[in-house]
Amino acid sequence: MKTSIATVSLSGSLVEKLHACAAAGFDGVEVFEPDLIACEHSPEEIRALAARLGLTLDLYQPLRDLEGVADDVFADNLRRAAATFATAGRLGIDTVLVCSNVATATIDDDAVSAAQLRQIGDVAADHGVRIAFEALAWGRFVDDYRRAWRIVELADHPAVGVCLDSFHVLSRGHDPADIEQIPGAKIFYLQLADAPALQMDVLSWSRHHRLFPGEGAFDLAGFVRHVLAAGYVGPLSLEVFNDTFRQTDPGRTAVHALRSLLWLQDALHLAPVADAKPPNGFDFVEIKAEDTSEVEVLLGQLGFIPGGRHRSKPVTLWQAGSARVVLNEQQARDEVPHVAAIGLQVPDADATSRRAADLMAPAAYRRTYASEQPFGSAVAPDGTELFWVTQPPTGTADWVSEFRDGVPAAGGPVHAVDHVNLTQPWQTTEDAVLFFTSVFGLSADDPTEVPGPTGLVRSQVLRTADGAVRIPLNVAPLAVADGSLAQHIAFACDDIVALARTARDAGLEFLSVPDNYYDYVAGRFGVDDDTVAALRELDLLYDRSPGSQGHFIHFYTRTVGSVFFEFVQRFDHYDGYGVDNAPVRLAAQRSRTRS
Amino acid sequence: MKTSIATVSLSGSLVEKLHACAAAGFDGVEVFEPDLIACEHSPEEIRALAARLGLTLDLYQPLRDLEGVADDVFADNLRRAAATFATAGRLGIDTVLVCSNVATATIDDDAVSAAQLRQIGDVAADHGVRIAFEALAWGRFVDDYRRAWRIVELADHPAVGVCLDSFHVLSRGHDPADIEQIPGAKIFYLQLADAPALQMDVLSWSRHHRLFPGEGAFDLAGFVRHVLAAGYVGPLSLEVFNDTFRQTDPGRTAVHALRSLLWLQDALHLAPVADAKPPNGFDFVEIKAEDTSEVEVLLGQLGFIPGGRHRSKPVTLWQAGSARVVLNEQQARDEVPHVAAIGLQVPDADATSRRAADLMAPAAYRRTYASEQPFGSAVAPDGTELFWVTQPPTGTADWVSEFRDGVPAAGGPVHAVDHVNLTQPWQTTEDAVLFFTSVFGLSADDPTEVPGPTGLVRSQVLRTADGAVRIPLNVAPLAVADGSLAQHIAFACDDIVALARTARDAGLEFLSVPDNYYDYVAGRFGVDDDTVAALRELDLLYDRSPGSQGHFIHFYTRTVGSVFFEFVQRFDHYDGYGVDNAPVRLAAQRSRTRS
Repeated sequence: MKTSIATVSLSGSLVEKLHACAAAGFDGVEVFEPDLIACEHSPEEIRALAARLGLTLDLYQPLRDLEGVADDVFADNLRRAAATFATAGRLGIDTVLVCSNVATATIDDDAVSAAQLRQIGDVAADHGVRIAFEALAWGRFVDDYRRAWRIVELADHPAVGVCLDSFHVLSRGHDPADIEQIPGAKIFYLQLADAPALQMDVLSWSRHHRLFPGEGAFDLAGFVRHVLAAGYVGPLSLEVFNDTFRQTDPGRTAVHALRSLLWLQDALHLAPVADAKPPNGFDFVEIKAEDTSEVEVLLGQLGFIPGGRHRSKPVTLWQAGSARVVLNEQQARDEVPHVAAIGLQVPDADATSRRAADLMAPAAYRRTYASEQPFGSAVAPDGTELFWVTQPPTGTADWVSEFRDGVPAAGGPVHAVDHVNLTQPWQTTEDAVLFFTSVFGLSADDPTEVPGPTGLVRSQVLRTADGAVRIPLNVAPLAVADGSLAQHIAFACDDIVALARTARDAGLEFLSVPDNYYDYVAGRFGVDDDTVAALRELDLLYDRSPGSQGHFIHFYTRTVGSVFFEFVQRFDHYDGYGVDNAPVRLAAQRSRTRS
Repeated sequence: MKTSIATVSLSGSLVEKLHACAAAGFDGVEVFEPDLIACEHSPEEIRALAARLGLTLDLYQPLRDLEGVADDVFADNLRRAAATFATAGRLGIDTVLVCSNVATATIDDDAVSAAQLRQIGDVAADHGVRIAFEALAWGRFVDDYRRAWRIVELADHPAVGVCLDSFHVLSRGHDPADIEQIPGAKIFYLQLADAPALQMDVLSWSRHHRLFPGEGAFDLAGFVRHVLAAGYVGPLSLEVFNDTFRQTDPGRTAVHALRSLLWLQDALHLAPVADAKPPNGFDFVEIKAEDTSEVEVLLGQLGFIPGGRHRSKPVTLWQAGSARVVLNEQQARDEVPHVAAIGLQVPDADATSRRAADLMAPAAYRRTYASEQPFGSAVAPDGTELFWVTQPPTGTADWVSEFRDGVPAAGGPVHAVDHVNLTQPWQTTEDAVLFFTSVFGLSADDPTEVPGPTGLVRSQVLRTADGAVRIPLNVAPLAVADGSLAQHIAFACDDIVALARTARDAGLEFLSVPDNYYDYVAGRFGVDDDTVAALRELDLLYDRSPGSQGHFIHFYTRTVGSVFFEFVQRFDHYDGYGVDNAPVRLAAQRSRTRS
């Protein structure tokens, strides 16, 4: 279907927004009136620019507070509407959005509103435009799309139809099924926005917290299905008021936005987006730095086995069970150790590559020599590179043999990557969630907030249903400069107490846990004295699921560059991440940095 | 009264928090359990540190989800409570906060809860502590302080009392008058927090948006009056969960917090804070820079009269009507023009100075020579300096005669400073509001949000009732680096069209307003063609109050350094700031910066 987006969804000037939408590949845009008012270019120039960029101008919006008023007020409103229709005409736009009255309505009567809309329709028709009447969720009298439709039906004017906005319908909990009662030809426009499940006044929710489809709690696919069943044939248009998108690069937001419409059309089987199954597990994690030797020391102390150097690149492989860490010193001048890439095993690498391309995920470019295994690739919004190979039927992926000592690691306590925690700048968080859910089919857990010593850290886990791939995304508080919140790789192990003891004997420096923590663990969970003593001796942390036997023991290494390691053991189906221990970790990490 | 604050209200480690609270002058603190758990120091060390700093440790908190449960769960809860009481004992704290059960309660029965609190009271007494039971606003069964008191009354145990928290009472709209039914001796603790009037779920509201007393919409003085009438004699303690204070300098937050308690006690006539009346008007505005000559050119073009150089300092005075601009090049190396100070005329400068000192406002230090007029002074949270003198009965303040050509300016279109707009970093916004309202008796209008091209700008006006002093505070969107949102000084004038024409003829560079804006003004307000033509010719902006004749014409200069000027004319009691034009201004300023 035709795709469109309201210019209010993006940051920048109107000209910048048009360029961003065209570059992303949108078919059209809705022009937000304040964007035009603040623009140095005339309506005719904007019309010509859009034509050159290949964008249609689909809607001019919004015209507010027109109907449900006394006659004298209405006369002035008609004049105001005429001026707006004239501007729309100069832009070459044939549809103007009219919102239900929120401020000046005094007459709560469908017949009056219909009669007034009919008069506005006459003026609109004189200007060669039509009006799409929308029930705002906080309209003074008209706050339900079914009432807006009743008024439009009463108005019975060819230039008067309705605009449907998923936010205004779903935020109020109104049943979208009744949309099918509206003749498709009278649905003049469709605006789409998702939103998180928040309990707050609907106006603030709408103005600050809308999201692109697939990022929130609304059933957008179900909503659109009703609209299509009604016979609507216009564009799928995004109108997303969001504090982040208002501020960040409009080019990136436009791609992100269009990806959300591809995801939505895929869910409705309307777009040719290739299917791909979610990943089976992690294949490797890559740490990149000019000098990775400090990481090598850590991995050695933790029982990882060096798998040798790559035959053509300054890259080394370290293995423990099925966990593989690639240390990359290629083109890494001045870089401190950080997670640069995540490798995944997928059921069909080619299918995943096709899906990633269809969803506009940018490819990552790495030099691949003849006879080396090619990877599928994509770059996540925060710059982390994702690679994937088809899961080998047995043994390890072919690329492992490109390393000189590419032997499988001997059995040891560490057996797999449990999760990879990526820290996100606030600018890319929503974008990253849609990227991982749409391209890789991961599901997004509800976000949580972890109190750190200098603010709340927002954390949201993206994962496969079976937990084989888990990628928590952490967003630092504002006061913490981007990047100073470290990433980490967590490894699953079988006997964490033995591993910790061996590592300590090998000289590993643990993240130090305060004594008070162990008094707390004993008191809160009633853990027996011997276990508490062992935890205390080895700087191990403990968690237990409420009302179950599931528990969790884990520990952290010190941070090297901007990455640290975690080692975890899950007992009795514990499925969390020890989130209550995160404040202790964050405080210890901060204390270390400052001492 | 004794003052206290919960450590959760501040950023940093527990040790940093204790130092900050002691330095600000608090009498005591509540220790938030997670702060202790994450702390490297033992409870005994914390107790000793607090003693050395002169702080009492007033409360250990919180102990959650204890009562209203089945017997087997309660047995474990008793064990957990005992461990917490032991820790409190090691800290030397005699009161532990017990919150009403939010997670595990299964029995909705006052008698059961009372019996369980009684048993907990026995264990507490064994440890030499008492428990203060608090109804959380989102408690599973107990969410009203009156019910918490009924349960405590039923428990009838000397170690069991209630804790009252203004947020939990007022956020639910519960009548605080019933507090007077509780015997004062059974109110074991009092926690205070203000909050803005938000419509959202009470848990999120509480966790993110609490404010210090005097900053929000709650009647804290009325609340405390009921608690005192009940006979409460414990500390006034602040518990403020706020996303900003969690992140920012704990030393500054602690002073800010204590100022709020001084303000509150002043409102209750409990503290010796000197009275002072609000200012009568602006006395001057000071712009500071290494080189102020570009500002001089602007002022000259706008009809300001140079009042000469100061006799002892590299400072010049420019006047127009009663508007005085001081240009200061003293100790300003590398500084671009910015608003450095605001001078106010007050009814009694000594009274304002005493009040500022009592409210812990830091003084600003300026070199004052013999025979120069001394000013009262304070530094606002954003660093802007405030000075004040007693309003002279007639004529101008004595300091004006310190300038060599200190003659009053001839009559001209500009007659006064209308408002001074200060841009705030996000870190100091709440602090600034309390500073201006408490020290100067300004009132705070409701905040608004202005859509700029790169995000929402939050704006809140602080003003005197008569509008003689108006100080809007603007907070930039995150993506805009601090300081890049310019400050401005607005001058009131009598014939703005004539002023604009004269200034243009004198070569003034106006902020350029897009043509589209004038089409919009004509359409929206039905302004006649001649007026629109004059507005368009001179880059003037227009606004009108809804449903009244009050209207507003204004224009902006280009920005010099980080300051620009606005000239305004208010017609027919227009009392606003042309806020709907702010997006046009912000877009034009951004466009200028980028071209």
